[in-house]
Amino acid sequence: MTNENLIQYIYSIADNSLILGQRLGELCGHGPTLETDIAITNIALDLLGQTRSYYQYVAELSKEDLTEDDVAFLRKEREYKNVLLVEQPNTDFAYIIARQYFFDVYHFLLLEKMMDSKNVNLQAIAKKSMKEVAYHKRFSGDWLKRLGDGTEESHQKMQQAVKDLWVYTDELFHMNEDDEIVTKAGFGIDNAALKDAYYQEIEALLKESTIEIPTTSYFQKGGKKGIHTEHMGYILADMQYMQRTYPDMKW
Amino acid sequence: MTNENLIQYIYSIADNSLILGQRLGELCGHGPTLETDIAITNIALDLLGQTRSYYQYVAELSKEDLTEDDVAFLRKEREYKNVLLVEQPNTDFAYIIARQYFFDVYHFLLLEKMMDSKNVNLQAIAKKSMKEVAYHKRFSGDWLKRLGDGTEESHQKMQQAVKDLWVYTDELFHMNEDDEIVTKAGFGIDNAALKDAYYQEIEALLKESTIEIPTTSYFQKGGKKGIHTEHMGYILADMQYMQRTYPDMKW
Repeated sequence: MTNENLIQYIYSIADNSLILGQRLGELCGHGPTLETDIAITNIALDLLGQTRSYYQYVAELSKEDLTEDDVAFLRKEREYKNVLLVEQPNTDFAYIIARQYFFDVYHFLLLEKMMDSKNVNLQAIAKKSMKEVAYHKRFSGDWLKRLGDGTEESHQKMQQAVKDLWVYTDELFHMNEDDEIVTKAGFGIDNAALKDAYYQEIEALLKESTIEIPTTSYFQKGGKKGIHTEHMGYILADMQYMQRTYPDMKW
Repeated sequence: MTNENLIQYIYSIADNSLILGQRLGELCGHGPTLETDIAITNIALDLLGQTRSYYQYVAELSKEDLTEDDVAFLRKEREYKNVLLVEQPNTDFAYIIARQYFFDVYHFLLLEKMMDSKNVNLQAIAKKSMKEVAYHKRFSGDWLKRLGDGTEESHQKMQQAVKDLWVYTDELFHMNEDDEIVTKAGFGIDNAALKDAYYQEIEALLKESTIEIPTTSYFQKGGKKGIHTEHMGYILADMQYMQRTYPDMKW
């Protein structure tokens, strides 16, 4: 296992938090109620805080003279390894919640295993992040139930969101080459082994929410290999603008 | 009059075409019908073509080693001198048409005068652009009438768009310091002198379209001094991304 394998592995974890954090950040000041607005902004901040820990570690590992900001803001689209799920747009509140819950359940299972990583840095980040992600999952799960088992309109909207986003769940468990190498070395987590627990947990909550479980057998993928949806370019344009326009700026 | 005065004057004309062209470009592939989609994309191309002529001239005038691409893509937000009207979003088709018509009538009156500029470059650009802008105005005016005097829903939507965008019309006739200097030298056009003809023409068409003429006496301004609305940052992020991410790229 080279440092470059490890860096790529960290991207495939940290970029999910970065891009989802950026998506949630777009909502700051636009939540349906003040309390929800603040909750979503807090989740965004948690995710970006985790991202910083990962990227600081990447900067250490890298042979080049990189900073965490270079890693976050100056990569090209193909160099981001987040799954397609997290780059999906804030279509409406149901989509925001379904996307969040689908990610949170995976994220929690991943961090649980990462606490046993042989890599002490990853171990430490996992321990620090667990509490935050437990809260995210409670928040998104509660809302999914409330909307799914709510009014006719909220049920219909949540059903639509679950149906549309379902096709992005399978990619969470894909392993690219770097994932395999880093996992074999005992540093990474075997994503595929999380899959059963994931779908069990999700399907139980969907049932409780009176939401029908989609039966599609076709799933979208690509993000983990750097092949993103059309949304990604716009996310990066917004996210990278400050750093590209005012390089090395200080606040 | 210095070269810098003239450059700033050209920005206050050309940046309108650039930003409106970029806004219309966002619609490519999203028009309500194929014919309208192509018409709007053609207008965008006309405007961007005019922009190139202006910016090539700026590049010549500049003491720095600038290209038309630098001028278009590498300025900071405050350095763009377009009016606020053209940066308003594509809220719906009524907004797109009202914004276009409000700009086209001004644009036509401006170019008519610019054909008599003492500056041969501006004269030539005006002559080349007149036919295009005559077509733009016919297109947007026809649609404004069709929607204003159409169904109850189309009327109501057009009325709303006209009401919301009206507050951005007055700025078209403002003169900043550079405008004054360049106009005194016989190169620029006295915008203020276009105002009566503008409102006469617009109000006649609004009446014909059964659209009520807004009576507000409060108008928005700022763009001509580089103070833009919140939309401008997002427009520039999208528009400048390629050039900032891949500097000096060749297609």
